[in-house]
Amino acid sequence: MAGYGARKDDVLLQLRKVEGQIRGLQRMVDADTYCIDVLTQISAASAGLRKVSLMLLGDHIEHCVVESAEATESERSARVEEATAAIGRLLKS
Amino acid sequence: MAGYGARKDDVLLQLRKVEGQIRGLQRMVDADTYCIDVLTQISAASAGLRKVSLMLLGDHIEHCVVESAEATESERSARVEEATAAIGRLLKS
Amino acid sequence: MAGYGARKDDVLLQLRKVEGQIRGLQRMVDADTYCIDVLTQISAASAGLRKVSLMLLGDHIEHCVVESAEATESERSARVEEATAAIGRLLKS
Amino acid sequence: MAGYGARKDDVLLQLRKVEGQIRGLQRMVDADTYCIDVLTQISAASAGLRKVSLMLLGDHIEHCVVESAEATESERSARVEEATAAIGRLLKS
Repeated sequence: MAGYGARKDDVLLQLRKVEGQIRGLQRMVDADTYCIDVLTQISAASAGLRKVSLMLLGDHIEHCVVESAEATESERSARVEEATAAIGRLLKS
Repeated sequence: MAGYGARKDDVLLQLRKVEGQIRGLQRMVDADTYCIDVLTQISAASAGLRKVSLMLLGDHIEHCVVESAEATESERSARVEEATAAIGRLLKS
Repeated sequence: MAGYGARKDDVLLQLRKVEGQIRGLQRMVDADTYCIDVLTQISAASAGLRKVSLMLLGDHIEHCVVESAEATESERSARVEEATAAIGRLLKS
Repeated sequence: MAGYGARKDDVLLQLRKVEGQIRGLQRMVDADTYCIDVLTQISAASAGLRKVSLMLLGDHIEHCVVESAEATESERSARVEEATAAIGRLLKS
């Protein structure tokens, strides 16, 4: 089960905002907008994606924590390792 | 004038690919996909945006370099400072 | 209480490695090493710091999860929020 | 020849500051400082390294641009590609 149920609408809203930024980027490139201004907009879209990541991670960690009462130690370790690996991928992306 | 003329099609293609990833993310969230899988897809979209940044930066630096023959020293410094500031924003985003 | 007790030696070892890289960087700059080679070494040191972050985060999340059995809901939320904020700072740094 | 001659002292000063931060991190871990505070300090050290990168990159690009008058087109392209690859490594690190 996904852990972001409560924030699903916020996450979708933020993703639609990023989608709009990506479409705006296409229009900018199509209109030969000055490169530096395009890069500034790319930074904004990346920051928007980072915001989504943090929403999902926060809910995921909360979820893991809440469920841990019924989890075995090895399930718990596997969950934490999985979350840490996902954070590692975000830090590199 | 924008410096990415020659690669415009590649940049647009890559942006459309990222747009598709963002739409895919919305479908994943809408279908309550497991959070960690959503985060992996966000990492992929971020990496796609980074790829666009590097295409644009490469062309921009090349462009600056080519034009520098006719630029004054202060124009040149301003251009380099502007590019460095854009890289700084990318590194933080 | 800090959550990295078990991995303390690994964390310290990794930090000493990064310290050595930073000292190596000073020697490189002092010897006028080619800029691109210095930047490659900076990337390596940053990746080393990221590795430390992930070690600490993994242990911290595990720790939060283990302790949550005795925590109140508001304590738990505060902990998760704090961890998410720390991840956010890492993603921006 | 390295392109950071003029800023060499600033770069070395900044690197020494980062070295001090890494040593501070070792003391924090050694004293079992709360994990989140250690992570905040890691973010600060990473930001310090990023600052060094930007100093070096700015000078490097300026240098490339200045030298380009006497460079052949293929030398110039190779230089720009090399700089872009270095930026790519930084964005991933």
